[in-house]
Amino acid sequence: MRVAVLGGDGYCGWATALYLSRRGNTVAIVDNFSRRQWDHELGAQTLTPIRPLAERLAVWRELTGNTIESYIGDVTDYDFVSSLVREFEPDAMVHFAEQRSAPYSMIDRKHAVFTQVNNVVGTLNLLFALREFEPDCHLIKLGTMGEYGTPNIDIEEGYITIEHNGRKDSLPFPKQPGSFYHLSKVHDSHNMMFACKIWGLRATDLNQGVVYGTMTEDSALDDALINRFDYDEVFGTVLNRFCVQAAIGHPLTVYGKGGQTRGFLDIRDTVRCIELACLNPAARGECRVYNQFTEQFSVLELAEMVASAGAKLGLEVEIERLPDPRVEAEEHYYNAKHSKLVDLGLQPHYLSESLLDSLMNIAIEYRERIDRSLMMPRVNWRFTSNRRQVPTDSAEDALAIEAKKTA
Amino acid sequence: MRVAVLGGDGYCGWATALYLSRRGNTVAIVDNFSRRQWDHELGAQTLTPIRPLAERLAVWRELTGNTIESYIGDVTDYDFVSSLVREFEPDAMVHFAEQRSAPYSMIDRKHAVFTQVNNVVGTLNLLFALREFEPDCHLIKLGTMGEYGTPNIDIEEGYITIEHNGRKDSLPFPKQPGSFYHLSKVHDSHNMMFACKIWGLRATDLNQGVVYGTMTEDSALDDALINRFDYDEVFGTVLNRFCVQAAIGHPLTVYGKGGQTRGFLDIRDTVRCIELACLNPAARGECRVYNQFTEQFSVLELAEMVASAGAKLGLEVEIERLPDPRVEAEEHYYNAKHSKLVDLGLQPHYLSESLLDSLMNIAIEYRERIDRSLMMPRVNWRFTSNRRQVPTDSAEDALAIEAKKTA
Repeated sequence: MRVAVLGGDGYCGWATALYLSRRGNTVAIVDNFSRRQWDHELGAQTLTPIRPLAERLAVWRELTGNTIESYIGDVTDYDFVSSLVREFEPDAMVHFAEQRSAPYSMIDRKHAVFTQVNNVVGTLNLLFALREFEPDCHLIKLGTMGEYGTPNIDIEEGYITIEHNGRKDSLPFPKQPGSFYHLSKVHDSHNMMFACKIWGLRATDLNQGVVYGTMTEDSALDDALINRFDYDEVFGTVLNRFCVQAAIGHPLTVYGKGGQTRGFLDIRDTVRCIELACLNPAARGECRVYNQFTEQFSVLELAEMVASAGAKLGLEVEIERLPDPRVEAEEHYYNAKHSKLVDLGLQPHYLSESLLDSLMNIAIEYRERIDRSLMMPRVNWRFTSNRRQVPTDSAEDALAIEAKKTA
Repeated sequence: MRVAVLGGDGYCGWATALYLSRRGNTVAIVDNFSRRQWDHELGAQTLTPIRPLAERLAVWRELTGNTIESYIGDVTDYDFVSSLVREFEPDAMVHFAEQRSAPYSMIDRKHAVFTQVNNVVGTLNLLFALREFEPDCHLIKLGTMGEYGTPNIDIEEGYITIEHNGRKDSLPFPKQPGSFYHLSKVHDSHNMMFACKIWGLRATDLNQGVVYGTMTEDSALDDALINRFDYDEVFGTVLNRFCVQAAIGHPLTVYGKGGQTRGFLDIRDTVRCIELACLNPAARGECRVYNQFTEQFSVLELAEMVASAGAKLGLEVEIERLPDPRVEAEEHYYNAKHSKLVDLGLQPHYLSESLLDSLMNIAIEYRERIDRSLMMPRVNWRFTSNRRQVPTDSAEDALAIEAKKTA
C-alpha cells in the first residue's frame, strides 16, 4: 500500500511512518518542519535528541533496506499538495500535519488565527486534491477526543442516535471543544463530512486521546531514529511532562482539582490504529469516526501513578496543584466509547505495564537535557495575550504579571 | 444605543442600519464594499439601482437629520477592527460582514478557502477586539438556518436536551451544513460559544432563514435609499429570483424535486429581529441562539405561489425543474422551532400579504434591468471547479460542459 504520512517528521507521524514502512508499505513523509520551528519560537526542545529528517531516513534505509521518500512543503500550499498527490499516487493519506497544541493556539490572537487557518486550509486542500486527482484514496485524518469536550452523557464514536419529540435520527455528536486548537479540529471534521457526502470521498476521522510514550519497536532500532518527547507546558502532553518532572524532582503540575478526565493511549497503539485504519478503508462517501484511545484517567490519577512509579525508582515525587490556566470543568462525568478500533484488532498496551519501562526510564536517561523553566503554565485561557518570555519560575507569578497587563 | 452594523452596505445590513438609525440609535456602518466587488467578478448586478454609500448616507442625513457614520475597512484586518471598537465604543455590534452565498463558496477551491478564512477570521477578530476593548458590548452575529441541515428530528433553537443511556445534558444542536459557506457559519458558531465561555462575552447567534423582499419603511423614503435586490444564481435568494423570473416570462428554476423546505422571512422582519436582539442583550458569558424566520415553505410551494401571484397580474408563469446542482435531500422532514424572537415581540409580516406588493411589483418596476443570462445555475456542488463564464443559456449545457472538463 502507498501511504503518505503528512507531518511525518513530528511525534506521532515519525512513529507511524517507520511502523508502516517496516510492514511493507511504500511510505512518503510530507513535512515542512514547522514543529521544529515552533521549538525555536518557544525556546523549547524535545527531551530526546532527534536528528534531522534526512539523517533519520538514511539510517532507516541502511538498517531496513526500506526507502521512505520525503516531500518537503506546506499543506496550505495547494500547488504543493496537488503535485504531491499526482506524483506519489497514495492509496492512503495519513494527515498529522496540523498545529496540535491547545496552549499554542491560546497564546494570543495571532496564534489562534494561525492555528485555525493553517489546520482548516490544509485539510480543505487535501480534500480538493483527493477529489481532483485521487478520489479513491483513503484520507485518515487525526482529530482529537477534545472535540467532544466533557458532556454529561456518554460520548459515542462520532455520531449519536437522538430521539426527539417522537422522531429519531443519527446525527454528528455535538461538539464542545475547549481551545482554538480543538475548535480547528471540529471545523475540519465538519468540512470532511461534507466533502465525503458531496464528492464520494472516503475518510476516517480518528479522534485521538492524549498520547504518551516515545519508543516503538522501530525507533528502538537505532539512536538516530529516536522520536520526539515533549514535556514543555505548550507541546508536552501531560503524562510525558509528569514523568520528566518526576525525574528531576520537580513537583508534578496538576491544574486545578485534577479531576479533568481524558482518554489516553500509548504511542505504540497510535501506530497500530493507523495501520488498522489503512487496512480497513472507509467506503466511498463514508466519513467514519473512531475514538482512538485505550484508557481513561483523571489528571490526578495520573499524577498519583507517576508518584508511585517514581517511588519504586527511588525518586521523591511531590504533587503541586496550580490554579487552572485553562477554562474547563475540573470535575465532571466522562465516559467515552472506544470499541471500534478494538473490533478491528487493536490489542492495547496498557499504562500500568509501560509506565516504568517506556516512560520513566526515558525521562531519567535524558535528564541532563531537561530545562526546568519549561514546566510552569504560562498560557492562560482567560487572557487574549500571553507573553511567554516573562522570566519566572512560578506559574502564579507569570499569570499574575499577565493579569496586571491585561486588566 | 450605539450600534455598529458590519456589512452595513449590503442587503440585510443596509436595511438594518436605517431601521436602527431612525429609531434613535447612534449607528455606524462598517463595510469594505466586497459585496459590490463580487458583483463585478460575477458580471451581475442588483435589480435595483443602488447608490454609492456616501450618497446614501448624505440623503439619509438630509431626510431624517440622522448621521450614520461610516468606517471603511475589512474585518479580517485586526488593526482596523480594534481601532473601530476603541473609537466607536459600541453597545452592540451587528455582524453581517461575511461572504454569504452558498454557490459562491462552491465555485472552486479558492472561493471555498476564501469564504471560510474570511468569515472565520473576521469573527475571531471581533471576539478578540471585544474581549480586549469592549467586553460588555453585545455581539449580534448572523448565522444561518442552513447550519442545521435537514435532520429527521425537530430543529431546536441552538441547543437540544439529549437523554442518552440514562443521563441527560443540554448540548449544541448537531450541525449538518450543506456548503462551504454554511460550514463557515458552523465554524463561527463554535468559536463564539467558546469565546463567550472563556471570556464572559455576550453574544446572540441569529440563525436566519432565507430573506425576501427589499422595501422597508425607511428605504422607501427616497429612491436614493433603495436596497439591493439580488436575483442571480449565485447571490439571489430563491424567492427574489422567482419573482424576477416571473416578471420577464422566464420559467421559475426549481432544482430537483423542489421538496427542499426552508425557513423564510421578510426583510422587514430581519430588521425588527435585530432591534429585538439589541434591546434584549444576552447575559455576560451567554451565547444564545435564535432561529430567525417566520414561515416554512418548500421550494415548489414557493414556485406555485409566485405562479399564482403572477397570474393575478396577468403574467404567464411556468415552472421548470432542473437537475439539482446542489447535493441535498430533495424531499425531507423539516420542522424548525422559531418562537424565541416572537416571545420578545416580533410580529411577522407573512408572505401571503407581501408577495404581490413588495415583491412582484419591484420585479416588474425594474424589469428593464434584468439580465436573463444570470438565471441558470452554473455552480455544481459535485465539481471542484465551476467556470461561470461559459456562454450558454441552459443549465444542463453549462453543467455538462463542466462535467466533461472535470471528468
